[in-house]
Amino acid sequence: MQHQKLATIEDVAAIAGVSIATVSRAINEPTKVADATRRRVTEAIARTGYTTNAMARSLRMRRSNMILILAPDVGDPNFSNILVGLETEASKRGYGVLIGNTQNDATRESDYLRFISSNQADGLILFTGHLPYGYSSGEMRLPPMVAVNEPVLGGDIPFVGVDNVEGARVATEHLISQGHRRIAFIGHSTAKAVNLLREQGYKAALSGHGIAIDPHLILAGDGTTESGRAATEHMFVRDVLPTAFFCVNDATALGVIISLNARRYDLPRQFSIMGFDDISFASFVTPSLTTMKQPRLKIGEEAMDLLLALLEGKPARRREVLLRPELIVRNSVARIGQD
Amino acid sequence: MQHQKLATIEDVAAIAGVSIATVSRAINEPTKVADATRRRVTEAIARTGYTTNAMARSLRMRRSNMILILAPDVGDPNFSNILVGLETEASKRGYGVLIGNTQNDATRESDYLRFISSNQADGLILFTGHLPYGYSSGEMRLPPMVAVNEPVLGGDIPFVGVDNVEGARVATEHLISQGHRRIAFIGHSTAKAVNLLREQGYKAALSGHGIAIDPHLILAGDGTTESGRAATEHMFVRDVLPTAFFCVNDATALGVIISLNARRYDLPRQFSIMGFDDISFASFVTPSLTTMKQPRLKIGEEAMDLLLALLEGKPARRREVLLRPELIVRNSVARIGQD
Repeated sequence: MQHQKLATIEDVAAIAGVSIATVSRAINEPTKVADATRRRVTEAIARTGYTTNAMARSLRMRRSNMILILAPDVGDPNFSNILVGLETEASKRGYGVLIGNTQNDATRESDYLRFISSNQADGLILFTGHLPYGYSSGEMRLPPMVAVNEPVLGGDIPFVGVDNVEGARVATEHLISQGHRRIAFIGHSTAKAVNLLREQGYKAALSGHGIAIDPHLILAGDGTTESGRAATEHMFVRDVLPTAFFCVNDATALGVIISLNARRYDLPRQFSIMGFDDISFASFVTPSLTTMKQPRLKIGEEAMDLLLALLEGKPARRREVLLRPELIVRNSVARIGQD
Repeated sequence: MQHQKLATIEDVAAIAGVSIATVSRAINEPTKVADATRRRVTEAIARTGYTTNAMARSLRMRRSNMILILAPDVGDPNFSNILVGLETEASKRGYGVLIGNTQNDATRESDYLRFISSNQADGLILFTGHLPYGYSSGEMRLPPMVAVNEPVLGGDIPFVGVDNVEGARVATEHLISQGHRRIAFIGHSTAKAVNLLREQGYKAALSGHGIAIDPHLILAGDGTTESGRAATEHMFVRDVLPTAFFCVNDATALGVIISLNARRYDLPRQFSIMGFDDISFASFVTPSLTTMKQPRLKIGEEAMDLLLALLEGKPARRREVLLRPELIVRNSVARIGQD
């Protein structure tokens, strides 16, 4: 242990050049103190090593004014726009945002758990679809949480995201409205909630129009461009061909388009392709991709609004906020048989 | 002020179920304590509100074992792979990584400054090209820093990135080797160091081959797809046409390709296009893009290695680490006059 004189609140006030009352307010009600003043006080506290019971209490009561966002891959094109929504809302309400890129890696997730357990985050936004690895409810209490993009299965965590079932139904019905009846679904996966829900919407649309579900037209895929390419190649090997591809997301649709372009098909005349998400390259690829646009900014804003309500002790108005995606018609879907 | 009994180190040890010596070690030498034990102690500290002079000292001495990365846009395709390199190296050395997405916004940057000033980050990686807004050297001391991607102008901050001058020279020489002499540069900007350096490499290549620099072939651009499109349209309006476009980055090159495709040119027969960066869509666009690949993983690893050396009190071996980009030949560049 160090033996040195403990800094007092008077020391902090003197160094920061503010009153003792201001130091106290900066610690206990940081949002009520001007940014510049709060910064001076925070720095004076750091310089003197001043600690108080009130600071410990503030730690316990989680007053870092920081929200931690855990995401498996910040490079995911769906992430950055949702992030802007999250940040805009947080900033409006006086909170900063930190991002932890977990890569679904247990070591990284437990690093973030350590960060959370020392009360350095007031709230958590989970893009991961699960509670941080290493968390066990007996050992520690997590701050308020909201799940975004992927619901946390089996938990009681409020969720904000797109209505995947409804979106996939609208997408498939758009293909049906263009005369397609042999519509493939690329992206079957039992491991991903988003894939399961979009497949459900696809099947609902077919059934709703009296079209039999053909299991040969449902191909596995994990949502990557490579999986879209592989599924398409597989279809040609087996020679079971659809007239249209509904892909679980735009990345998969890109793989389908690459594969069909490489085989020199005339798109969309010979095959129609439908995506989901509307990520940036959707408008750049040839043919440009007809897809379902996620209201990403709005998802981020709603999720942060819900989290801050929980944080402020208000009951969540809704446990699940599902926003409708919008059909964006470009050039990758054609009426069947039209030349 | 609260009046309540102050928690002692014995309280923490009892709640965590460990010895007092272990509590002390978890505070003072956290990396020497098993993860699970450290977590138990951290949680017991949070629960009891225990604070010590040693903890204050530890705060002052910056022992969060967290590195903060400040980036203007985590959605930038150049960011995510560099991030993987940064995280891999940090994780290997026992550090966690947090990301602050600044959007070059003063409020957000000062939020992160507040986070830094309370010693919650041991080190800083700057993608922003500047020190955090609101920082003034008289008021606080920043932890060790390394700049990545964009150097911090006017500072004495070690930098790790790609050799932009050399990369642009190699890119331009590739076009010259294919017979091009009227080569446009799209992306002139005095506000961005990367643009300035790449323009310098372009000019060096032309001069080195006795080709006069034609200011009509140098067009402004801020590195966005829209700027590439606009510059191309501008060239057609003025009717001053090159045979090849060297673009400051792939996003700009995509804009050029969109514009030329829309005008129904046969690419690369009628115009050659060269990018820089090798971001993911470069291989998907038609024609697929010939470009300079940044060694992004390596940049991230080197930058974190340099930061951790500084953190551990070792002098930086180098103030600037410049890595060579690699020429990736795809289908957007053709030999001139070849049909």
